[in-house]
Amino acid sequence: MKVLAIGEVMMRLTPPSHKMIEQTDTLDLSFSGTGLNILSGLSRNNVKTSLLTGLPDNSVGKAATVFTRKLGVDTEWVCHQGNHIGTYFLELGFGNRPSQVTYLNREASSFCSEVIPDNKIEAAVESHDIIHICGIALSTSLVSRQLILRAVELAFEKGKKIIFDFNYRPSLNTRVDHEQLFSDYLYILERSHLVFGSPRDLAHFYQTDSMTEEALIEKLLTDFKEIEWFTGTTRTENQGLSGWLVTNNGERVVSPIHSITVFDRIGTGDAYASGIILGYLRGWSLQETVDFATCAADLAHTTFGDSPILDESFIKRFMTNPEAQVFR
Amino acid sequence: MKVLAIGEVMMRLTPPSHKMIEQTDTLDLSFSGTGLNILSGLSRNNVKTSLLTGLPDNSVGKAATVFTRKLGVDTEWVCHQGNHIGTYFLELGFGNRPSQVTYLNREASSFCSEVIPDNKIEAAVESHDIIHICGIALSTSLVSRQLILRAVELAFEKGKKIIFDFNYRPSLNTRVDHEQLFSDYLYILERSHLVFGSPRDLAHFYQTDSMTEEALIEKLLTDFKEIEWFTGTTRTENQGLSGWLVTNNGERVVSPIHSITVFDRIGTGDAYASGIILGYLRGWSLQETVDFATCAADLAHTTFGDSPILDESFIKRFMTNPEAQVFR
Amino acid sequence: MKVLAIGEVMMRLTPPSHKMIEQTDTLDLSFSGTGLNILSGLSRNNVKTSLLTGLPDNSVGKAATVFTRKLGVDTEWVCHQGNHIGTYFLELGFGNRPSQVTYLNREASSFCSEVIPDNKIEAAVESHDIIHICGIALSTSLVSRQLILRAVELAFEKGKKIIFDFNYRPSLNTRVDHEQLFSDYLYILERSHLVFGSPRDLAHFYQTDSMTEEALIEKLLTDFKEIEWFTGTTRTENQGLSGWLVTNNGERVVSPIHSITVFDRIGTGDAYASGIILGYLRGWSLQETVDFATCAADLAHTTFGDSPILDESFIKRFMTNPEAQVFR
Amino acid sequence: MKVLAIGEVMMRLTPPSHKMIEQTDTLDLSFSGTGLNILSGLSRNNVKTSLLTGLPDNSVGKAATVFTRKLGVDTEWVCHQGNHIGTYFLELGFGNRPSQVTYLNREASSFCSEVIPDNKIEAAVESHDIIHICGIALSTSLVSRQLILRAVELAFEKGKKIIFDFNYRPSLNTRVDHEQLFSDYLYILERSHLVFGSPRDLAHFYQTDSMTEEALIEKLLTDFKEIEWFTGTTRTENQGLSGWLVTNNGERVVSPIHSITVFDRIGTGDAYASGIILGYLRGWSLQETVDFATCAADLAHTTFGDSPILDESFIKRFMTNPEAQVFR
Amino acid sequence: MKVLAIGEVMMRLTPPSHKMIEQTDTLDLSFSGTGLNILSGLSRNNVKTSLLTGLPDNSVGKAATVFTRKLGVDTEWVCHQGNHIGTYFLELGFGNRPSQVTYLNREASSFCSEVIPDNKIEAAVESHDIIHICGIALSTSLVSRQLILRAVELAFEKGKKIIFDFNYRPSLNTRVDHEQLFSDYLYILERSHLVFGSPRDLAHFYQTDSMTEEALIEKLLTDFKEIEWFTGTTRTENQGLSGWLVTNNGERVVSPIHSITVFDRIGTGDAYASGIILGYLRGWSLQETVDFATCAADLAHTTFGDSPILDESFIKRFMTNPEAQVFR
Amino acid sequence: MKVLAIGEVMMRLTPPSHKMIEQTDTLDLSFSGTGLNILSGLSRNNVKTSLLTGLPDNSVGKAATVFTRKLGVDTEWVCHQGNHIGTYFLELGFGNRPSQVTYLNREASSFCSEVIPDNKIEAAVESHDIIHICGIALSTSLVSRQLILRAVELAFEKGKKIIFDFNYRPSLNTRVDHEQLFSDYLYILERSHLVFGSPRDLAHFYQTDSMTEEALIEKLLTDFKEIEWFTGTTRTENQGLSGWLVTNNGERVVSPIHSITVFDRIGTGDAYASGIILGYLRGWSLQETVDFATCAADLAHTTFGDSPILDESFIKRFMTNPEAQVFR
Repeated sequence: MKVLAIGEVMMRLTPPSHKMIEQTDTLDLSFSGTGLNILSGLSRNNVKTSLLTGLPDNSVGKAATVFTRKLGVDTEWVCHQGNHIGTYFLELGFGNRPSQVTYLNREASSFCSEVIPDNKIEAAVESHDIIHICGIALSTSLVSRQLILRAVELAFEKGKKIIFDFNYRPSLNTRVDHEQLFSDYLYILERSHLVFGSPRDLAHFYQTDSMTEEALIEKLLTDFKEIEWFTGTTRTENQGLSGWLVTNNGERVVSPIHSITVFDRIGTGDAYASGIILGYLRGWSLQETVDFATCAADLAHTTFGDSPILDESFIKRFMTNPEAQVFR
Repeated sequence: MKVLAIGEVMMRLTPPSHKMIEQTDTLDLSFSGTGLNILSGLSRNNVKTSLLTGLPDNSVGKAATVFTRKLGVDTEWVCHQGNHIGTYFLELGFGNRPSQVTYLNREASSFCSEVIPDNKIEAAVESHDIIHICGIALSTSLVSRQLILRAVELAFEKGKKIIFDFNYRPSLNTRVDHEQLFSDYLYILERSHLVFGSPRDLAHFYQTDSMTEEALIEKLLTDFKEIEWFTGTTRTENQGLSGWLVTNNGERVVSPIHSITVFDRIGTGDAYASGIILGYLRGWSLQETVDFATCAADLAHTTFGDSPILDESFIKRFMTNPEAQVFR
Repeated sequence: MKVLAIGEVMMRLTPPSHKMIEQTDTLDLSFSGTGLNILSGLSRNNVKTSLLTGLPDNSVGKAATVFTRKLGVDTEWVCHQGNHIGTYFLELGFGNRPSQVTYLNREASSFCSEVIPDNKIEAAVESHDIIHICGIALSTSLVSRQLILRAVELAFEKGKKIIFDFNYRPSLNTRVDHEQLFSDYLYILERSHLVFGSPRDLAHFYQTDSMTEEALIEKLLTDFKEIEWFTGTTRTENQGLSGWLVTNNGERVVSPIHSITVFDRIGTGDAYASGIILGYLRGWSLQETVDFATCAADLAHTTFGDSPILDESFIKRFMTNPEAQVFR
Repeated sequence: MKVLAIGEVMMRLTPPSHKMIEQTDTLDLSFSGTGLNILSGLSRNNVKTSLLTGLPDNSVGKAATVFTRKLGVDTEWVCHQGNHIGTYFLELGFGNRPSQVTYLNREASSFCSEVIPDNKIEAAVESHDIIHICGIALSTSLVSRQLILRAVELAFEKGKKIIFDFNYRPSLNTRVDHEQLFSDYLYILERSHLVFGSPRDLAHFYQTDSMTEEALIEKLLTDFKEIEWFTGTTRTENQGLSGWLVTNNGERVVSPIHSITVFDRIGTGDAYASGIILGYLRGWSLQETVDFATCAADLAHTTFGDSPILDESFIKRFMTNPEAQVFR
Repeated sequence: MKVLAIGEVMMRLTPPSHKMIEQTDTLDLSFSGTGLNILSGLSRNNVKTSLLTGLPDNSVGKAATVFTRKLGVDTEWVCHQGNHIGTYFLELGFGNRPSQVTYLNREASSFCSEVIPDNKIEAAVESHDIIHICGIALSTSLVSRQLILRAVELAFEKGKKIIFDFNYRPSLNTRVDHEQLFSDYLYILERSHLVFGSPRDLAHFYQTDSMTEEALIEKLLTDFKEIEWFTGTTRTENQGLSGWLVTNNGERVVSPIHSITVFDRIGTGDAYASGIILGYLRGWSLQETVDFATCAADLAHTTFGDSPILDESFIKRFMTNPEAQVFR
Repeated sequence: MKVLAIGEVMMRLTPPSHKMIEQTDTLDLSFSGTGLNILSGLSRNNVKTSLLTGLPDNSVGKAATVFTRKLGVDTEWVCHQGNHIGTYFLELGFGNRPSQVTYLNREASSFCSEVIPDNKIEAAVESHDIIHICGIALSTSLVSRQLILRAVELAFEKGKKIIFDFNYRPSLNTRVDHEQLFSDYLYILERSHLVFGSPRDLAHFYQTDSMTEEALIEKLLTDFKEIEWFTGTTRTENQGLSGWLVTNNGERVVSPIHSITVFDRIGTGDAYASGIILGYLRGWSLQETVDFATCAADLAHTTFGDSPILDESFIKRFMTNPEAQVFR
């Protein structure tokens, strides 16, 4: 089972030692993206993964490719074209202080502005079993929207499994026609098998605020017959976190609530997603799957960088021994 | 409204990664001082500010001036003379371990040993509306005492508002005649409009331990008719912090108690003070002012460096959304 | 005499320790631009300077403003609008290995895409005596071209001195109509008093390769009567560098040849320019001016960052004592 | 009273900023070992200490000696021979995430493979009053086992006090004959005066799981008449820590429970041990001794590195003022 | 054409800022090995490469694999087994001061002590066209010797091209029977097609000091009929470097002499070798090949790390423009 | 033979990466002093050394002691008293750019202001064979002058060898009575055995500029009968350096001229001195001694920090193989 993710890779610049940008003359450099993060979580557990994306044809783009390769992800399908990469700054918070994210221009990025040739998309989809996409690409540019829709079309035709990160953020979509976005989502949901999201996403999607969370999820699973699992996490007060998963035959499992500790908040949802996908690939029980994914998300708050960096053996050791201070 | 602070700037040297001095071969370099810190908190909210101080006439003094400028503070009134700057080391604590501050010689600093020409003091005071001074300068040297007293004399004559940081530390005053110090304080308090301090300061000042906190504050406001506000913070057990403010017409407001998280403890009182002064300048309600200043102080525990670095928009976003983990 | 520069500020990201991008996980952060660099060289010698530019209205833009202020340049005329800043990576060379510069997208930058209000341009020009502009802004975007032309128009009307950095790079101008560019240059040259450039620039400008260097310069000075000085540097083999200057009454001075040593090559031309402008402002002799500027350029090869960081006293000490290993 | 420790020094390599190894291109370098750590805790309180060990005869071995000297420990008895040093990586945890220790080959280290000449052992033991050894050396190699046993033999003959760190880890002893290990422990326990350990150690040693903790300790103190004190720490849930000590005349003292905060977990047991030994040398009461040692251990969780770095005055100030945020 | 290298990967630890080990508390971490370095030089020019090696089955071994992958080398044939990796320290020289290399124990490394299964060797050799080995593995351990000989046997049987790095260092071979080493070399030379070495290697190999360099090379090419090219570099005084190559039909080409500048001396021979192999694969002329490889070696002295990091386009740009200070 | 140096230890703060102070927010921390540097050069060659000095009684003073110990120097005679340490900044030059040293106030340092008890001076002198002092201490303060003169008195009485670093800098002596300084020098020179200096020192001392260098040296050796050797270095153009030594029986040796390469210029004279003293202690020939010391000085230009860090074996390897690029 080989997994292909299709999505943008951005450059992340982080001041060291919890400083704000104006306090520092050095930055930590890494690269990030929902697809990349999920593949990172899978590849370190011996799942074969590839990323289909566009990156600049210069030394920065090559560094992003090197970073992708470092994470264990195959870069055969990375297209080097154009000269720009989307960039964001992360000022890491501490204790009571939240982290702050600042985006620079993203529209001009290679991913958002340079078309990836269709034969490349087709070949990439063809040579994998599972395709991961993220709803955010529908809004970032016409080029990225077209890429995602074409990939879904091809994947569904060829009988691939499709994993969809719902990520319905109306605020980002100011320049997108709302009806078109809705119809794009319809198109994708009709072809998706694993969907990551929240009841809030569904409320935005269905443009309603009168339905309960349960009813929203039930409606989704009724409306879209291909969906096997709808899953996500809930944050509760005092930094509580738990995972949940609902299947298309009505099963619902919930993890214990974790009291999280935050070093680097970004990418923890992607750690959860990669945990769920790992359980799906391995055929673990639903409860095992959700518990593992929630542990993965808990620990991802404590590691540097957006991409999951701990492997299955570490996470499982933590599951069975959550009070340990040292693993030897 | 332009604010002038008069006070010493010291060099702060901090081992990285929570190390003790003997464990490191690198140090983080910054500059600090009560006046500078308060101006930093104001300048990033579009208040025009200047610092009147003495700094060495060499590359270290110039670096201190550059640092001051970085914080948005006008350095037109910085006098480069002499060759020394007061220095302190800060070994940052972690969790149960407190931070440790070590001062090197301060008496020989340019600020403490080189006289600033009177016409410079006069011109600086003249061109601002509000003057901030700190009681500590009364004890650090004769030169610094003379500067402060002269500035207060001039400011009062010219009808400026005077902000006074009480900071009555008898332990520092071993070489100062106690009666003189008392009379210096009398002189200043008779001319001050905003006073920052604590009941403990007042007990030392009045050399009493039989009065309640309320009575001490009432006495102060009765004795010194110019004082409009007396304000400060209280620390409660389990790292609790709250701000309070009493006016000369008997109003008293108190903020909610914040449970603080500590990254860098130094300068948090200055963050509180700059929050209060901002409220004063903006004409916020007393409650808004104290609540904002207490949030500013809470967050200042979580940022690196002595000088407030977060602006009003960040602090207000935190006030309305204290559970957020990421600001985007 | 107050100097205003108008130009773009870019973010510079530099791998440490002479590494290539893919070898590092940290970057050195600074900001740079021809105008900013020249002002940095002037401000540290007590010339009053301001920068008129556009920077993003976010924490990155503010950090760029802080950096500008650090260099001693007034930021009153910085407009915070838009959300993007042009970015370039600098992989510093070593010995035989040249440095490598990689640009990310620049068109979307605040400077290139957001219009600065005319009243702001007018007020900025009005309140300075000398205006510095760079030809490169004519090609980077329509917005930047319009800004430069309008500033020149206003400055000339108001009788300001105009300093023009020729910088005619046809390779950058692929999307610019060539005739228009030529006519823009005509417009500016007719109003400029100090021009920095090279005979090669002139050959491109006049689209000729049959004229000698001397003839080209003579033609320029004949064609444009406002030009007082045309000046630049020549690189000779074995890392030789010398400055030269021709006046509109036919004087020509040349500096001795310096054998340069390279730590950070970028910005050395700007160091030369700020040395020339300083001599102009101070009324030094032509020879003194060119010798000083050439020393400034020589030393700028040995300091980190694009912006000149050494002051007049250091440079003059070096001029009189070029073999010294330590200044105490 | 001079204290000699005999034991291995290993090289510790730690990724910065809580990163995992694969995320970093820099490492923090230090050196560590039970004996070295305990001596570090003593030397900074004016106890004369020396380390008897083997280190490589190259620049790495010399750096380890320099590090030892930095900690205030005499290196006269360090033998430079062989070319290898045992190495371990420490990936520091954060919050919920435990630290992870990875050992590289240790058998080939100078300490484990190169014989220290007998006359050197004899002279080292002769010139000290107290000898500290650790049970772990019995299992790391034949060479290290022989060294420890010979040192105990000599020390007992010469009437020195022997301090023994029990550290009975059957998992490490796969290649050691179990009966021999037991008889080695017998030999040492018959000659030891202070023993550090836990009831679990005793259960392994006596190969029983039916005795209570009290009974195990009583049995130890009955079986081995030289033992004056048996002492250690207990961890309770929610990161609780307390120290306890039992004497050979039946006294038992326990410290209050500390709620610890973790920055660097390694070496905290050694900080406890050095606190106990300091109390022993100073003749403090049992309760004072255990309380001090527990504070030392608590604070050791908050400092970087394995070796105790805080001195008596810091620890005592903390004991009397545990809520302080800054020591000035 | 796919290239497989078989060889050890070591951990390289480098003090920063040209410091000696005892002066630093941080180290730069990288990984290195002749085979790895050569593949790095090839992979960045779009040659498919893989490394067959043994690395520890722990987080350090995984970090080495990640590093290998970063360089663009396929890690499918990396065997994670054992727990040790050979380590060396590099104290980088500066100017007159040479660099200093210190090796820790290497015999216990996974590569030297753990046997790679024969079917893995066979499959690796089978799936590549060219096999690179280094003579040093014949002496490091019996396990590594056996691996190399078996790989050569298989490669020759299957008609693969064999590239051999002569590297005959008698000083390393104290524990190896000299006759056996000679016969091992015979075995390999009879099967090799490209050989990297020096006349000095040949003099050691033939145990003669009476033959000229030319005669030694001629003898080698006469004795071993499979060898197509014998090639290497010569260092001349004043830091001169030139490459040369002799073919089995008597052609001899030499590059111009480069005057090198040294930042990091290690691995420059491997940069030369990868340049030669690239020319071989691309079918460049002999002169082009040697000139390119010599430029690659020249530039490798100026980049950080043992593994070639510059690609063909950079090197060729340098060849045609050796005086450039900046590439844009 | 045990060597005692008496002198001040200062804190050195160095911006990283060749930056100027205002460009950095981190500093490299080390400690330095002529006496300390010379002992560092001796201790790494197995000479027993101690430093008699005063350092602050706080964490900075302790860090200076730790640094001293790191260099292999016994700190038994370090007196912790007072609270200040002299400080200097070093902005490292590069290529054509000289380094720049900036001193902060030194008069208030523990060494210059706190009296070391006479019994401590006496015991320190008593327990060593050779005493090193530096003329600079005669001018830094009355306290330091008194310490040096008393130490010379005691050392001469007890028949110790005295080494004197002439270092006659009239510019530093503005506040010292010139006649007194001259008489202090007389007192010391009458009791010194090895003197380091230059003809220029002698010209200042004798207040003449009409004598040749040879005549000055001859006069010195005639005037002061105890002096065995007078020695120093000469700098020639193009960064040339050579050592020379004249004995009291008229022998004169000179080293070859070295063409130096500069990384960190400070302390190279101290490296020369420690080389000479090593030759003196070892009984090397004059030529060997001067050649070794000159190599030590040459290499000291290439290492970080003021204190010699290379040992005899490294320096001798360099002497016999000056073209080597790597020592293995």
